[in-house]
Amino acid sequence: MNVEIWSDVVCPWCYIGKRRFESALAQFPHRDQVQVVWRSFELDPDAEPQYPGTLDEMLAQKMRTTPERAAALNARVTNLAAEEGLTYRFDLARPGNTFAAHRLLHLANERGLQNEAKERLLKGYFTEGMPVGDAEALVQAVAEVGVDADEARTVLNSDAYTDEVIADERRAMAFGIRGVPFVVIDEKYGVSGAQPAEVFLQALETAWTAAHPLTLVGSDDSDDEANACEGDSCAI
Amino acid sequence: MNVEIWSDVVCPWCYIGKRRFESALAQFPHRDQVQVVWRSFELDPDAEPQYPGTLDEMLAQKMRTTPERAAALNARVTNLAAEEGLTYRFDLARPGNTFAAHRLLHLANERGLQNEAKERLLKGYFTEGMPVGDAEALVQAVAEVGVDADEARTVLNSDAYTDEVIADERRAMAFGIRGVPFVVIDEKYGVSGAQPAEVFLQALETAWTAAHPLTLVGSDDSDDEANACEGDSCAI
Repeated sequence: MNVEIWSDVVCPWCYIGKRRFESALAQFPHRDQVQVVWRSFELDPDAEPQYPGTLDEMLAQKMRTTPERAAALNARVTNLAAEEGLTYRFDLARPGNTFAAHRLLHLANERGLQNEAKERLLKGYFTEGMPVGDAEALVQAVAEVGVDADEARTVLNSDAYTDEVIADERRAMAFGIRGVPFVVIDEKYGVSGAQPAEVFLQALETAWTAAHPLTLVGSDDSDDEANACEGDSCAI
Repeated sequence: MNVEIWSDVVCPWCYIGKRRFESALAQFPHRDQVQVVWRSFELDPDAEPQYPGTLDEMLAQKMRTTPERAAALNARVTNLAAEEGLTYRFDLARPGNTFAAHRLLHLANERGLQNEAKERLLKGYFTEGMPVGDAEALVQAVAEVGVDADEARTVLNSDAYTDEVIADERRAMAFGIRGVPFVVIDEKYGVSGAQPAEVFLQALETAWTAAHPLTLVGSDDSDDEANACEGDSCAI
């Protein structure tokens, strides 16, 4: 079963959604037959490489509200993140453009290390104050989970994986995806947002039964109601 | 998925468009579920069977310009064709009526050889100086890709596939198609002209997702932005 999750490294709901999806997957009996791929989605493709101020200041500017108000909103999602065992440090967060991060996630995918790299970058941004648009910070982060640092640097010094990021974003558009996280199972079932784990589990189960329909053995006599009860009028 | 491409054998943008569409198809993950049919479109139904002069002279006459000016226009499209790996030799080109060519493309379609025949006729006209209105030249060309020469000759000596060519052109009119190439996917999505490969790919993806819409599992909370990030202002 093929699960694609569109997500951005700087999206607070995406990290929470990742934990909730992982929780659903842990409960799913066929989890060993599920392949998860992280797809690129930039919340702000026009973001400058590194925003000069803090995240609170940036949000205050973008949301036309005060830094105090933005900090209060951040506090709410910080509490929800804490319920998933995540430590959000918006006071440290250093926002910026995420295109380079997405390119490295494609490299990590080819090396079989994408989930590890995704987790590392999310933790870096939300917990450790990693500047998300800084090439060397990104290289060091993915190197920690096993992606070769020199190869990562070479990727960021070229235009490698640029097409792949754009292709992900084009597919998101084709699916009508406007916000993240967004989970797509077998290109057929979608879950929008960081839904509770039980919703992700329900989606996995729905997709599984759709891909593995029952094979009926013997004739299906339900039409003539000869030996089956249907609805509240059982023909006996 | 059903792709129909209206096109003429003497249309320089059609051959370029064919390459660009092929490039898009090669990148499309569901390409094995795509069926392509070439539809007939005559740019000049009143063309005499074989124009006595060169293409440059014919264009100069039709476009009310000088042969030199026509040659300059041809040079531009020749360069664009070269970018797609095609060799255009307008200096050799022998224009004429394409009705017979379209009838043979319908025969080739019934023999499962339409794409091969289309490619062979385009190459013949644009690269090799094949007289596009010459019945025997056409028969030889399609025979090279496996269409039986005797059968092709018999077709051109009868009125076989005349109705099919006219039917294609009537459907083009019904769709409002005034120029070629024109790609129609599932009788629903249209791409006019030799657009870049990424536009064809986007059309394929749009048609695919339209035919296979996501089933949303769980509530779609994206509207109230409760647990998803959208755009650059994540509601947290």
